[in-house]
Amino acid sequence: MRPSQRQPNEMRQIRLTRDYTMHAEGSALVEFGETKVICTASVAQGVPRFLRDSNKGWVTAEYGMLPRATHERTQREATRGNQGGRTFEIQRLIGRSLRAMINVEAIRDYTITIDCDVIQADGGTRTAAITGACVALIDAVRYMQQKRMITKDPIRGLVSAVSVGIYNNVPILDLDYKEDSNAEVDMNIVMTDRGEFIEVQGTGEQRAFSQQELNQLIELGKHGIEHLFNLQKEALGWVTESA
Amino acid sequence: MRPSQRQPNEMRQIRLTRDYTMHAEGSALVEFGETKVICTASVAQGVPRFLRDSNKGWVTAEYGMLPRATHERTQREATRGNQGGRTFEIQRLIGRSLRAMINVEAIRDYTITIDCDVIQADGGTRTAAITGACVALIDAVRYMQQKRMITKDPIRGLVSAVSVGIYNNVPILDLDYKEDSNAEVDMNIVMTDRGEFIEVQGTGEQRAFSQQELNQLIELGKHGIEHLFNLQKEALGWVTESA
Amino acid sequence: MRPSQRQPNEMRQIRLTRDYTMHAEGSALVEFGETKVICTASVAQGVPRFLRDSNKGWVTAEYGMLPRATHERTQREATRGNQGGRTFEIQRLIGRSLRAMINVEAIRDYTITIDCDVIQADGGTRTAAITGACVALIDAVRYMQQKRMITKDPIRGLVSAVSVGIYNNVPILDLDYKEDSNAEVDMNIVMTDRGEFIEVQGTGEQRAFSQQELNQLIELGKHGIEHLFNLQKEALGWVTESA
Amino acid sequence: MRPSQRQPNEMRQIRLTRDYTMHAEGSALVEFGETKVICTASVAQGVPRFLRDSNKGWVTAEYGMLPRATHERTQREATRGNQGGRTFEIQRLIGRSLRAMINVEAIRDYTITIDCDVIQADGGTRTAAITGACVALIDAVRYMQQKRMITKDPIRGLVSAVSVGIYNNVPILDLDYKEDSNAEVDMNIVMTDRGEFIEVQGTGEQRAFSQQELNQLIELGKHGIEHLFNLQKEALGWVTESA
Amino acid sequence: MRPSQRQPNEMRQIRLTRDYTMHAEGSALVEFGETKVICTASVAQGVPRFLRDSNKGWVTAEYGMLPRATHERTQREATRGNQGGRTFEIQRLIGRSLRAMINVEAIRDYTITIDCDVIQADGGTRTAAITGACVALIDAVRYMQQKRMITKDPIRGLVSAVSVGIYNNVPILDLDYKEDSNAEVDMNIVMTDRGEFIEVQGTGEQRAFSQQELNQLIELGKHGIEHLFNLQKEALGWVTESA
Amino acid sequence: MRPSQRQPNEMRQIRLTRDYTMHAEGSALVEFGETKVICTASVAQGVPRFLRDSNKGWVTAEYGMLPRATHERTQREATRGNQGGRTFEIQRLIGRSLRAMINVEAIRDYTITIDCDVIQADGGTRTAAITGACVALIDAVRYMQQKRMITKDPIRGLVSAVSVGIYNNVPILDLDYKEDSNAEVDMNIVMTDRGEFIEVQGTGEQRAFSQQELNQLIELGKHGIEHLFNLQKEALGWVTESA
Repeated sequence: MRPSQRQPNEMRQIRLTRDYTMHAEGSALVEFGETKVICTASVAQGVPRFLRDSNKGWVTAEYGMLPRATHERTQREATRGNQGGRTFEIQRLIGRSLRAMINVEAIRDYTITIDCDVIQADGGTRTAAITGACVALIDAVRYMQQKRMITKDPIRGLVSAVSVGIYNNVPILDLDYKEDSNAEVDMNIVMTDRGEFIEVQGTGEQRAFSQQELNQLIELGKHGIEHLFNLQKEALGWVTESA
Repeated sequence: MRPSQRQPNEMRQIRLTRDYTMHAEGSALVEFGETKVICTASVAQGVPRFLRDSNKGWVTAEYGMLPRATHERTQREATRGNQGGRTFEIQRLIGRSLRAMINVEAIRDYTITIDCDVIQADGGTRTAAITGACVALIDAVRYMQQKRMITKDPIRGLVSAVSVGIYNNVPILDLDYKEDSNAEVDMNIVMTDRGEFIEVQGTGEQRAFSQQELNQLIELGKHGIEHLFNLQKEALGWVTESA
Repeated sequence: MRPSQRQPNEMRQIRLTRDYTMHAEGSALVEFGETKVICTASVAQGVPRFLRDSNKGWVTAEYGMLPRATHERTQREATRGNQGGRTFEIQRLIGRSLRAMINVEAIRDYTITIDCDVIQADGGTRTAAITGACVALIDAVRYMQQKRMITKDPIRGLVSAVSVGIYNNVPILDLDYKEDSNAEVDMNIVMTDRGEFIEVQGTGEQRAFSQQELNQLIELGKHGIEHLFNLQKEALGWVTESA
Repeated sequence: MRPSQRQPNEMRQIRLTRDYTMHAEGSALVEFGETKVICTASVAQGVPRFLRDSNKGWVTAEYGMLPRATHERTQREATRGNQGGRTFEIQRLIGRSLRAMINVEAIRDYTITIDCDVIQADGGTRTAAITGACVALIDAVRYMQQKRMITKDPIRGLVSAVSVGIYNNVPILDLDYKEDSNAEVDMNIVMTDRGEFIEVQGTGEQRAFSQQELNQLIELGKHGIEHLFNLQKEALGWVTESA
Repeated sequence: MRPSQRQPNEMRQIRLTRDYTMHAEGSALVEFGETKVICTASVAQGVPRFLRDSNKGWVTAEYGMLPRATHERTQREATRGNQGGRTFEIQRLIGRSLRAMINVEAIRDYTITIDCDVIQADGGTRTAAITGACVALIDAVRYMQQKRMITKDPIRGLVSAVSVGIYNNVPILDLDYKEDSNAEVDMNIVMTDRGEFIEVQGTGEQRAFSQQELNQLIELGKHGIEHLFNLQKEALGWVTESA
Repeated sequence: MRPSQRQPNEMRQIRLTRDYTMHAEGSALVEFGETKVICTASVAQGVPRFLRDSNKGWVTAEYGMLPRATHERTQREATRGNQGGRTFEIQRLIGRSLRAMINVEAIRDYTITIDCDVIQADGGTRTAAITGACVALIDAVRYMQQKRMITKDPIRGLVSAVSVGIYNNVPILDLDYKEDSNAEVDMNIVMTDRGEFIEVQGTGEQRAFSQQELNQLIELGKHGIEHLFNLQKEALGWVTESA
């Protein structure tokens, strides 16, 4: 039995609140149960140095946590003087994932910066962040189209992410903090809405895992991600809400 | 006429949402119109080095802004590697203001850290932060009393803060961003609920100001702060909501 | 009775030594009793990024303390790796105060950097710094006029500053370190020589203060600042030394 | 055809030079073709703060690159003032992988730090580092046993790692720099010598990948890692060199 | 002919003002012509970690420059975030030189920190700093003896330093800034008052130098340092002032 | 008797391995006994800001140590966040020494960066680094000539360096770590192959030294450096290997 009382393949309640803040070109509050992340997409002219004269635009991500988003207060990275390894790892993952849904040639000369700030953490913040950021990014791109900053639609499709893991030798979906911190194996899966993988990151935290377990985890992740695509489409108004 | 269409002595709509997050010992979301700040109070054992063997506890504050809380995205202080001068100035002001409402001898051996994180900025973030943090701090102290971490009530009273300024030669109350960035004079006032001052910080941004103007600004601030004390008392359940 | 044996409205001996160093375009050593600050004004071409294409020049200030300017040696900020919150607060105050005496349009394309370095501290370093920096700044501006770097006189008037406070429930003027560290209320006042305020920063360090006390402190500050303007004018040779 | 002229399932020449440096408790130079990494294992008393009073020891890793290990000189992280995101990501991967081969209860009170420094880079530095560090770590543990610092053998087995990827739509094994920088999909696999996974990190760099491609990549990785275990055992003298 | 019109073996006017500041246990202002350095010696209990349990005390030095001590304003190291290479080099030299005059066993459990802050620079700041710091250090040691913090006299003798160099192929003594920045060879010499060397640091800035030139420079340095010892002894009251 | 059993004037076995790495324009592994340093020379277009519009190129050096190059593991400077004073001192010495062998006008518009990374330390790393870097630098210059980046030969001659010291009152040559850490006096000498000095840096670590000792140390250094020039010439193929 899971600490959360959920079935192994049961997700937490997911909520996507579009246009959560007033200044950003695109924004969303994403909630995976008690995990809450504010995602904003900011459009700016110019590209990083390594893309100068490349005819490409750029999508990048930053990730942060409010100090008391966690059980114990964690030191503010701004007072520590730098971002930690975990932060770097997560924001690189979010950035790569979102670039997979964008044709960067179609946003040339622009950088879209995705900020994912966790205001409450209960496991799965990075996958929630990717799922919410996808919605914010699409709204920012629509803004660019309206303002005629770009002429071609750069969106290749949607991206969603979910965590899976092995807990008490049972593969489970969408781990909360309690489950995550005791899981034997932990995996984050990012997929496109065409059913292909962008990222598969599996880690044997307490023990190694077999080929069969790897297959089961991936199956479970696919199942959860399908659900997330439906919610994203509803939030974006692409489909009417399921009854 | 003010850009916000408000009367000179009219405040924005103020909202105080208590218990806004699940992990902190005390928390509140404070809204001054479109300015939104999450305030959390975290209790930890131990005191800073300069208070060792002093029989005193400590209350300190940190302040941050989500990168896209502002019109233009601002660089994350964690990526910049340090907090800026404005941040230091604000968190020192918040800390001093809150210490004025606490008898630090009565929380000996404990540090309460107040985190004020702006999720949307539209002027007056520091005074909103103080006003919200007061509520979070009281809840954290009540938590300490319930857990019998302290025996004596350390609360001396409430603290609220508001900004005033001179705009087009007219003293106005509770400036939003547009008003603030064009004000000739800018003043932050922090008071106790016994009608005394904790901080008065007036700055001639575009011109110097006369003794008479100083008096008018202070009068206006007192008026606004009275309203804030009523809202804090309602949020804390000390009075029933005004009809 | 004050620890310094002075009357409540009695200042320490103030000295302004103009042209204290050989390299700077303007410089002064300012002494408020045992508090000694070297102020230099350095002229350089160019303005900060946020003023590009604005037709404005800039005046900015930096503040430092020699490690053993204080009773106990304090760590050098250069070895610590950053400036502390107190330093930021002070240098922002000095910069704002000095900008109030300059028409920045008249120094377009130039930045004047004021460095205030405390070589001995005994209370009131920030107000001494402003008072001395005013003299250094005027000399730097005169240098610019002589070198025909600017054509219009940018000086709007003089600026002086003094600290006041409440000690043993008595409002006193120009606190030394011993008085300052035991004062109940602490206030810094910056004024123009036309009798208007640039900054009023009052803080209840040990207790809140009443409206009446606020008024008394301001009155005391005005009195002290009048004296400082006389000394600045003497140092600048605008008036002959008073008998 | 691969740029390296190798067959899709053909590895580069691998060399493991044990005891490469004189000071470390364990060390190895690992070469995957032109990629060369010095791995040292350093034993020290004490554990990180989060393990105090836990009865556990710790294994951690750091990763660096000589500035001219790469085609173009890269800035030294020590002059830049911090380690980059890529470095954090890699050293966290190495640390997790090596902890999987150690029973940390059996090295209580000790920390073993693995340093992996790339002296020449040609793709696959992180997987080479893990493979070489495994040998250095075993030697450091043997040293601890000889010195009677520990009584129980903490080694659970060997760990090896290899990179696989999709290049021109063909899954290939052990990518060099040229292949890696043009691969569509990139995957790092870390396994135990019992045929189980510790890490599977697959990234769609230029396009998403299908379930079938995921399976092929994993198959290829398993094949390569088997070869690495043979070489590690030879280097450690556990088997005699294959003819 | 030297730019300074001095004879090759002629020093600038040297002044040593003892007890220059009020807080430090020992202090001096040292002037080599227009080069002015404030030297303070601060006594504190405790020793650096590497000396724990060693029965030794420690003498260390820090060096700084006011931003406008130089012709052009230099960036404050505190705002830059770290000390530069030149600063490290100089403070290590000062520290080593002063430790040579102290028996560190006789100041066990104490650290004496020498701060040398240049308030005006005109060449030779590091040698002036050593010469002035020697006086400050002796006064700090006398303070420790009076306060009975130590029982044995730790002073082994005096230390002085001077710069020499080759300018227009002529060896010259005590270079000012103009001479120093055009010298072909530059050398700093630190000696004890028993005529032995503590440091000899010669650098061919614009060309290499011969054995004969090396000998001439050392001879010149000895000559200058003899004069400095006389001035130190006068300042310390060990001899009466020369007529 | 020396700990190393060598005669006072006997050097360790020196090895220079040219072209040690594949990417750098010039590279060498230099070994002074067990001290091993990788030296690379990297050519890049552009010069530092202070040389813009000067018609000069630049040669600069950086120095690093692998964490376990030493007996005890030392913290990585990249994790510490900055380079230490010792590192600055050494890389400035290396840079100055190598600039002495180059006519910087003849490499205008280019910067050559020398990286010296110690992979195993046993005393004398800085002098070994200079000796090895000289070879790497010559190869980088030859590369520039072949690629017609420069037209005039900028090489003025060779540069070598060695350490000498006084151990048990006996002047000795080429100290290893054990000797160095117990030497009374320590000196590094850098010379040109025309028999002139570039640097002489002598330090009385445990006691001051006399004029006679200074002369003996320099004599010993000259002797050692002569041997190094022969080895450099052999490595560069300028002379055939001595029988």
